[in-house]
Amino acid sequence: MYANCRNYRTIWVDRNDKKIIQIIDQRHLPHKFVIEDIRTVDQIFIAIKDMHVRGAGLIGATAGYGMYLATLEATEALNFDEYLINSAQKLKSARPTAVNLSWAVNKQLKAIVKGETIDEKIEIAFDTANEIANSDALSCKKIGEHGSKIIEEISKNKNGEVVNILTHCNAGWLAFVDYGTALSPVYHAFSKGIKVHVWVDETRPRNQGARLTAWELEQQSIPHTVISDNVGGHLMQHGLVDIVIVGSDRTTYTGDVANKIGTYLKALAAFDNNIPFYVALPSSTIDWEIEDGIKQIPIEQRGEEEVKYIQGLHEGEIKKVLLTPEKSPAINYGFDVTPARLITGLIFERGICKANKKEIFKLFGKFN
Amino acid sequence: MYANCRNYRTIWVDRNDKKIIQIIDQRHLPHKFVIEDIRTVDQIFIAIKDMHVRGAGLIGATAGYGMYLATLEATEALNFDEYLINSAQKLKSARPTAVNLSWAVNKQLKAIVKGETIDEKIEIAFDTANEIANSDALSCKKIGEHGSKIIEEISKNKNGEVVNILTHCNAGWLAFVDYGTALSPVYHAFSKGIKVHVWVDETRPRNQGARLTAWELEQQSIPHTVISDNVGGHLMQHGLVDIVIVGSDRTTYTGDVANKIGTYLKALAAFDNNIPFYVALPSSTIDWEIEDGIKQIPIEQRGEEEVKYIQGLHEGEIKKVLLTPEKSPAINYGFDVTPARLITGLIFERGICKANKKEIFKLFGKFN
Repeated sequence: MYANCRNYRTIWVDRNDKKIIQIIDQRHLPHKFVIEDIRTVDQIFIAIKDMHVRGAGLIGATAGYGMYLATLEATEALNFDEYLINSAQKLKSARPTAVNLSWAVNKQLKAIVKGETIDEKIEIAFDTANEIANSDALSCKKIGEHGSKIIEEISKNKNGEVVNILTHCNAGWLAFVDYGTALSPVYHAFSKGIKVHVWVDETRPRNQGARLTAWELEQQSIPHTVISDNVGGHLMQHGLVDIVIVGSDRTTYTGDVANKIGTYLKALAAFDNNIPFYVALPSSTIDWEIEDGIKQIPIEQRGEEEVKYIQGLHEGEIKKVLLTPEKSPAINYGFDVTPARLITGLIFERGICKANKKEIFKLFGKFN
Repeated sequence: MYANCRNYRTIWVDRNDKKIIQIIDQRHLPHKFVIEDIRTVDQIFIAIKDMHVRGAGLIGATAGYGMYLATLEATEALNFDEYLINSAQKLKSARPTAVNLSWAVNKQLKAIVKGETIDEKIEIAFDTANEIANSDALSCKKIGEHGSKIIEEISKNKNGEVVNILTHCNAGWLAFVDYGTALSPVYHAFSKGIKVHVWVDETRPRNQGARLTAWELEQQSIPHTVISDNVGGHLMQHGLVDIVIVGSDRTTYTGDVANKIGTYLKALAAFDNNIPFYVALPSSTIDWEIEDGIKQIPIEQRGEEEVKYIQGLHEGEIKKVLLTPEKSPAINYGFDVTPARLITGLIFERGICKANKKEIFKLFGKFN
């Protein structure tokens, strides 16, 4: 997608030096656009841990390239295989709850082991890393193609008037390798010439909406408006939202969706006002073991300082300010669960289905 | 209520000099506790306009004292009555949409006119200002007495375990002369020895919850936890909220409630999880002309800078930081309307009733 009028992915191999991986260091967005060169496994570890990169798809892709860098470093280690195993463990520990992280690392380990020489192992690791990244981008592209048809339909019903889409958090290209999930249908609809406007929930406490989604949309010149998380219900009551599209961090096979905290409140408001509420997601987020999202999905609690303090730009510098009384405690749940009954449909790379076990099983060719 | 371990109202007459009105300058909370001396109508005007004081009840009381100061200043004007009229107009223009403001100013004008001498007029203005403030405090006290019974009942049903109360925005004593509305039941329950804990919605974009409600509760040593506005639904799904109590800015005679933006989303979540949702409010917020809150109550839009920027404490100084891309637009609705069907009950100074026309008319002795 576009950043500073050039086309980027969120992670790529330096075109002049195959041994350098480049990422957008997202900590500085939206205020500064910083590209970081990564040469070592340690740097990959820090980039994931300290959230230079974030988002399910991008964490997986970054870990994939991390394992490729590990093969390069391993050539200088006493024991090539042992070095790889240690690097794998280290990378997995960077964000222990990120499912895509261990998935990508394991995929690399299985692939690399097939190489007979060290050079072959390095080549396999490089190819596998690229494959992980490409397949993430391709999935997101397909989600966009499917989802854009829903937006197109709404546009037709409105005689070509602007379609107002509300989204929560950032499930755009910055969270993946390209396109994103919730925003991919928007990007595809926009490129087909459909008039769209996006209501961007700021998404407290980490403000991924105000910082990242708004920046993404602004860089693609897509009309958008930032709103506080409190506003969506009012907009829906007054006919100012045509569709809600969000992402998913984990989805039960029955259609419950764990996504950024606050998603449930928007789903309630959409339901109360008869507004379609869609979740755009790669199949990898489905948890085939879990039936009841509210009872069974564990919800991560993060530090209270993310609620009590916030950072932003002050006279050209990024500064952190205290928002609450110093002694008041705060609590910080990362996600909530939206029950399937509030969800109009799930937009996967392989197609769209209703949020229930029967339709999900059918789409994935599974039998009950 | 307590501030720095002393008992305060939000506005009072200086005990050493009847010509000085003192207020808590709320712009500095929660980081600094500043008392401001007010000697002139101009200072009252600025205090209301620039929100040194805010909240329906407190704005009314401040305007009442403003008219008393006007009588003092008028003694040095060419024409006493003309000076009063001009001061009244000026005060009313400080926050044109605040209903209590013009109500208090008009009440003063009607009262002052009855005085025969200038000294009598000044005395009447002084007494009327005190009466406005006292009656605001008394209303809030009664709301607390009624509302605390609901909390007491929940406490009994939980065998004395902590009652978890969620509130949105600030409808505490800082918004009135004393006690507040939504928080008054909490203060009364706490003083009866009932175990309570308050979930404080930070209430973006102006953060009245994180700044004022948290500070109030902390000063009374009432257990509380600040949460982002996104969290309430998750807490309710998991049995962590026993009751929601909010305030009201305007209430239709059919029971719809206009309150701080985001209230509607909490009401939806409470309804979805079978949690009682109460509104605590003085009778003066009822609009006897309006039947349909969503269609008929005009919703104030405020400046986008309140969404794009936020202020907080940085190294001992209050600083403002930019949260969004500089070019991204934002929109800022001040209130939303919660339909009566989602409201369990209304807690007035004269008692509690259901949120419907029949019960409201009955409570107020009106006939349909």
